[in-house]
Amino acid sequence: MGRLVAAYGPEGALGQVRQGRLDPCFVEEMTSGKSRPPDVERHLRAWRARLQGADPVADLDEGARLGARLIVPGDLEWPTQLDDLGPERPLALWLRGDADLRFSCLRSVAVVGSRAATPYGTHVSAEMGAGLAEAGWTVISGGAYGVDAAAHRGSLAGSAPTVAVLACGIDIVYPAANHALFAAVRGKGVIVSECPPGVRPTRPRFLIRNRVIAALSRGTVVVEAALRSGALNTATHAVALRRHLAAVPGPVTSENSAGCHRLIRRAEAVCVTSCRDVIELVGAIGDDLAPEPRGPVLPRDSLDDETRAVLESVPARSGAGPATIAVAAGVDIPTVLSRLGALAAAGYVERAGRGWRLRHIH
Amino acid sequence: MGRLVAAYGPEGALGQVRQGRLDPCFVEEMTSGKSRPPDVERHLRAWRARLQGADPVADLDEGARLGARLIVPGDLEWPTQLDDLGPERPLALWLRGDADLRFSCLRSVAVVGSRAATPYGTHVSAEMGAGLAEAGWTVISGGAYGVDAAAHRGSLAGSAPTVAVLACGIDIVYPAANHALFAAVRGKGVIVSECPPGVRPTRPRFLIRNRVIAALSRGTVVVEAALRSGALNTATHAVALRRHLAAVPGPVTSENSAGCHRLIRRAEAVCVTSCRDVIELVGAIGDDLAPEPRGPVLPRDSLDDETRAVLESVPARSGAGPATIAVAAGVDIPTVLSRLGALAAAGYVERAGRGWRLRHIH
Repeated sequence: MGRLVAAYGPEGALGQVRQGRLDPCFVEEMTSGKSRPPDVERHLRAWRARLQGADPVADLDEGARLGARLIVPGDLEWPTQLDDLGPERPLALWLRGDADLRFSCLRSVAVVGSRAATPYGTHVSAEMGAGLAEAGWTVISGGAYGVDAAAHRGSLAGSAPTVAVLACGIDIVYPAANHALFAAVRGKGVIVSECPPGVRPTRPRFLIRNRVIAALSRGTVVVEAALRSGALNTATHAVALRRHLAAVPGPVTSENSAGCHRLIRRAEAVCVTSCRDVIELVGAIGDDLAPEPRGPVLPRDSLDDETRAVLESVPARSGAGPATIAVAAGVDIPTVLSRLGALAAAGYVERAGRGWRLRHIH
Repeated sequence: MGRLVAAYGPEGALGQVRQGRLDPCFVEEMTSGKSRPPDVERHLRAWRARLQGADPVADLDEGARLGARLIVPGDLEWPTQLDDLGPERPLALWLRGDADLRFSCLRSVAVVGSRAATPYGTHVSAEMGAGLAEAGWTVISGGAYGVDAAAHRGSLAGSAPTVAVLACGIDIVYPAANHALFAAVRGKGVIVSECPPGVRPTRPRFLIRNRVIAALSRGTVVVEAALRSGALNTATHAVALRRHLAAVPGPVTSENSAGCHRLIRRAEAVCVTSCRDVIELVGAIGDDLAPEPRGPVLPRDSLDDETRAVLESVPARSGAGPATIAVAAGVDIPTVLSRLGALAAAGYVERAGRGWRLRHIH
C-alpha cells in the first residue's frame, strides 16, 4: 500500500482499490524479476475487505469528539524523519495531546524495554527519562507497563513533552492501569497511533508500531530486555534505519538484561550507563554546532502568539527568507528576525542557504 | 635491570653492580638521544644498596624449607609468554604449589576485580572461576579479598589448578584471613611471586605484580572495578601486552561496576556475561584447530611417569623429532608417538616443522 500511494497518490490508490483493479504497470513493477514476488491480488482482496469495513467520516467525527487530530505527510506537524521508513512510512497518524509532534521529536530519544521489568529496570528507566527531559530531550516510548511507563513518568517529572506511540486507537487505554499516565502524557506531550479511534491492540500491531518509535527518534535506548523481548524488535528497526542504538547493562544474573548484553557484545548497541552517555551518543547525530537549548523543548501551546505564527510560516523543506516569512506570519521583519533567532536556539528551525526552514533531525 | 641482564647476562650484570661501574657503552645506549634519559647512576646506587641487603643463599635455604622452588628464564617450568614483557620480564619467580606453572598457564585466564566486591561481584567471580575450571581453563588472580578470592575458590571447586600471583613472599599470607585459601591453592595450583620469602607487600609491589598476572594469561576478565580500582591497572597491562580484555557488566547503579562499564563503553574490553563468553574470546587466540581437552589441565604430578618423561624432553622453542625425544626420555619411539599425541590433545605440546615443541600461548 505504501508503494501504491507513493506511485499514484492517496486518491489514485483509493480509486484502484475501489475498482478492484490495480494498474498493470504497477503489478508488473512489483512482481517482475523478483525471486519471491508479492501476491498482489491477495493484497488487493484484503484492502477491499478493509475498505468495506472502513468509515472514515465516523472516524474523523470520533477523533474530533476526543480532541484528536489526524496528520498526513506534508502537514506542518508531520515528522519528516518518518520518510526514512520508505514504503513502510505510515499513511497518516492520529494524535491526541497538547504538544506538537514534529517539534517534540526534533530532539528525542526512544526509551524501550521489558513490560515485566525488574525494580532495577524501572528505576533506571525513570532516571533516564527524567535526565533526558531535564536536558531538553523528548522521551518516546510505547506506553506499556514496566520500562515504557517508567520512562514516560520520568520524563513527565522532568517537565518535558513525552510521546507515547500506541498499537491501538488513541482513545484506548491499554494497559488500563496506565489511565492516569496517558492523561498526563496528553497534557504535556502527545499520544500517537496509526490506528483510528476504537481499534484494539493486537500482537502484529505492536510489532509494526515499533518501527514508528524507532523512526521518530534520533536513537533508541534499550533499558531492560530478555532475549525474546519485543524491545529488541524496536532495536532492530533502529539499526535498519541507521539510528543510534544504545543498551543499558545490568546484572549478568538477570534474564531481563540478557538482551541488552547481547546487543552490547555484538557491538550492535553502545553501552550506556546514564542519560549523559545517551545524549553524548544521539547529540552527535545532528548539527553539533547547534547551541543546546537551555530548557526543555516547549510544547506548541506555550509559545507566544507571534512566535507560533512565525514558526508556522517556516517551510519544512526549501528555505524561505525573513521577508517571505514576515508576510506569511503577518508580523514585521525585525520581529521575524528576533523570533527566528529564539526558535533556532531552541532547535526548531535552521538556516537553509539564505533562508530558514524547519530543522530536520538529520 | 632487565636491560642490563639482557645485555650481559645475570652474572655479567651482577659483576657490574658489584664493581659499582656500568659498561660505558650500556650507559651511552640507555641515555643517548632520549628526551628524558634515565638516571643510570641513581639506579646503580639503588641496586648496590639492595645487593648489600640481599642474602640469596639464605633465601634459597628458606625456599627449600618451605618446599618452594625458584625458576628463571630458560627453565622448563618458565612460562615463555612472560617474554612479552620485554625488559620488564621478571628475573626469576618463586613458586610454591603442586601444579606446573608453565603447563597451568597454557590455557589460563586472569580473573581480577575489587577487593571490596559486592555480593554480586563475588557471586559472578566464583561462578566464572568454577565455569572456567570445568572447561579446563586455569584461573590466575592475585589472592586478594573479594573478586580474587572468589575466583580462586570457584576454580578450586571446579578441580582445576589455580595460580595466585602475590605481591609479597610466597610464605606470607596477605590478607591473613585467606590462610586456608592459600593452602588450597598450593595443593591444587601454585603460588607465584617475584619476591623472595619473607618480603612484605607494599603498594608499588601490587602494581608491578599486576603485569605478571596479565602476561601469564591469554586474557584478563575484570569482574567488578570501581573507577579507581587496581584491577584497571591489570587491564591496562593486558591491553599493552595485546592480550584479550573482557569486563563483566553490572547494575549501572553500582559504583563497583563503573570501571567495567567504562572499559566496555570505550571498547577497550569485550562485554562478557559468562565463562562461555570468556572462552569464546580467549580460545580464539591460540590454535583454534587444537581439540579442546576433555577435562581440566592436569597438574604435572598427575601425569604418569612415561608421559612426564616425554613432556620434560620436549624442547621449549626449536622443535625436536620423536627419535631425539625418545633418547632424551629413555623410552621407545612408539611410546613417544602415543604420548606426544595425548600431550598435544591436552594442549601441552605442538608440532614445529617436522618435530615437536612445548605449546606457546601465541
